Amino acid sequence: MSKLINDTFLRALLRQSTDYTPVWMMRQAGRYLPEYNQTRKRAGSFLGLCKNPDYATEVTLQPLARFPLDAAILFSDILTVPDAMGLGLYFAEGEGPKFERPLREEWEIRDLIVPDPHDHLRYVIDAVSQIRKALDGSVPLIGFSGSPWTLACYMIEGQGGTDFLTIKKMAYARPDLLHHILDITAQSVIVYLNAQIEAGAQAVMIFDSWGGALSHAAYREFSLNYMQKIIAGLTQEREGRRVPSVVFTKGGALWLEAQAAIGSDALGLDWTVDIGEARRRVGDQVALQGNLDPAILLSAPEAIEREVGSVLASYGQGSGHVFNLGHGITQFTPPENAAVMIEAVHRLSRQYHS
Amino acid sequence: MSKLINDTFLRALLRQSTDYTPVWMMRQAGRYLPEYNQTRKRAGSFLGLCKNPDYATEVTLQPLARFPLDAAILFSDILTVPDAMGLGLYFAEGEGPKFERPLREEWEIRDLIVPDPHDHLRYVIDAVSQIRKALDGSVPLIGFSGSPWTLACYMIEGQGGTDFLTIKKMAYARPDLLHHILDITAQSVIVYLNAQIEAGAQAVMIFDSWGGALSHAAYREFSLNYMQKIIAGLTQEREGRRVPSVVFTKGGALWLEAQAAIGSDALGLDWTVDIGEARRRVGDQVALQGNLDPAILLSAPEAIEREVGSVLASYGQGSGHVFNLGHGITQFTPPENAAVMIEAVHRLSRQYHS
Repeated sequence: MSKLINDTFLRALLRQSTDYTPVWMMRQAGRYLPEYNQTRKRAGSFLGLCKNPDYATEVTLQPLARFPLDAAILFSDILTVPDAMGLGLYFAEGEGPKFERPLREEWEIRDLIVPDPHDHLRYVIDAVSQIRKALDGSVPLIGFSGSPWTLACYMIEGQGGTDFLTIKKMAYARPDLLHHILDITAQSVIVYLNAQIEAGAQAVMIFDSWGGALSHAAYREFSLNYMQKIIAGLTQEREGRRVPSVVFTKGGALWLEAQAAIGSDALGLDWTVDIGEARRRVGDQVALQGNLDPAILLSAPEAIEREVGSVLASYGQGSGHVFNLGHGITQFTPPENAAVMIEAVHRLSRQYHS
Repeated sequence: MSKLINDTFLRALLRQSTDYTPVWMMRQAGRYLPEYNQTRKRAGSFLGLCKNPDYATEVTLQPLARFPLDAAILFSDILTVPDAMGLGLYFAEGEGPKFERPLREEWEIRDLIVPDPHDHLRYVIDAVSQIRKALDGSVPLIGFSGSPWTLACYMIEGQGGTDFLTIKKMAYARPDLLHHILDITAQSVIVYLNAQIEAGAQAVMIFDSWGGALSHAAYREFSLNYMQKIIAGLTQEREGRRVPSVVFTKGGALWLEAQAAIGSDALGLDWTVDIGEARRRVGDQVALQGNLDPAILLSAPEAIEREVGSVLASYGQGSGHVFNLGHGITQFTPPENAAVMIEAVHRLSRQYHS
């Protein structure tokens, strides 16, 4: 493997000193980029992109060709694991991801098995290797997965963004069944992320998109505990470097203290929490990644620069901050506004690193 | 007016001693009740129910005939004010509320005026009077409105539950325009709630359904400040009693300290926050209302009783707690499960009041 030229992102995740605050954007390879839409048209669909390592490599690199980003993230979907379990991931036009065969019967739950990442998830592992080679040491590559709770939401509800009544009914009426699903899923995520690390991912992130739908107690029981198990099962070092992990519960800023204690190197923050307050709450246990509201990128350069400055100032002096949006960049973002943000982060952050 | 027989709810909102923890349910007059669905069929639609004081009275009283609830809440919609401003509220089948004429042009925003509650909102004020008479002093009547930010979300986006990109773009690119909308809307809510109080509402609640979509700083600027203005403009006493106010930002439990300082008597809590922790954070500034996850009512009596017990125990000893769900009761709730919850609250809470 080539030597890593820009390791600012990895250093920040480990709260080591850096010259400036590194930045990447969730969903940075996405529909706001015309070149992405062209590749997607050639691939035929979003899943067509994900499942073909050549296309996945191409779109992963597109934002890096445009912007001086400090990390690349594997182009894939959070729901690859349940798809590999046989649930049939698909995307209806203009809607979020869905499963053709959500879990309905107890025997279906009892029959779940941990997918071999080198078999049904081979396309992801191949994409990781290929992207890592293509990056040629320029910036680190992030691997990722959905969290067990978030995967289970889709596996049981068949889709996201609902009131999650079916899975919550199970959580309160048949917690044994839900724990079985979460346990198999957590084991699957461990081997999946370790295979990504083995193939070249230099950091990993767990996306808990729907953990914020839970009560305080249920979050601990059904989401956080399983992310903790995953963190404990991850390969810690590779190529002589620590492979840092980031845990991100969207809508979970109430529970940062609990998240900070599960052993991950960093926490993702959505935009609802003031990052300076988050830093005071977690102390020096973890680095923080976030947290500009992606809607701000729809406004104007002066507003973007002002809001970037405000996030940086709130975090304050010292390392341990990876700048990001608080959620994925929206498809309506003018790419030049993303450029304004990235330039502003790099320029304005130098004063906080000395 | 008849003397109030059960004032437990009003006393709890003012943190005065009570024999037990009072309980009501958001959306307690709703689709989970067969008798509600029958009346709705007669009325032809949800808006047909809201706009006819006879029907509104009938459905308001239905849950009280079934359950020993400690308060009634006016049957109405949070969006009556922008409807009275001329935006054309409607409900598409199976979807949330929408506006026919969302605000698109600057002149439309400049032309907004405060609706006279005795003119276009007369049907609400008449419903309040009629419900109050029909209650005959049994339990107090709660009036309500949407918060300015939440109303503005619908007024600008045309609907709720989106990513709120249009209104947020305005917040960052044209804050002057958004502040104008919020200012007119806050003035409108003040006269509207005061007219409800004048007509017999004994407590009022402001529903900030979408405040949780904002960043920490934007929440203060665009939502909380306007709720503070409303609280300051409300009639404080009526019929020789204080008229308590409740502010509820769904998804806003991160910001309880700020909410507790705006002068309302109580805060509504969704289920994401542990109510005991919320109590420690706000101290003795306000009462708390909440916060069982409504999904729990889909499970089984033992689970419901256990989770009710857990909320009560977390709040702990003493007054200042009004039991409620953390959001509206879902249409899929078996009414007998609501009965289990209410009975459990009344029975299990006595040990915390001495």
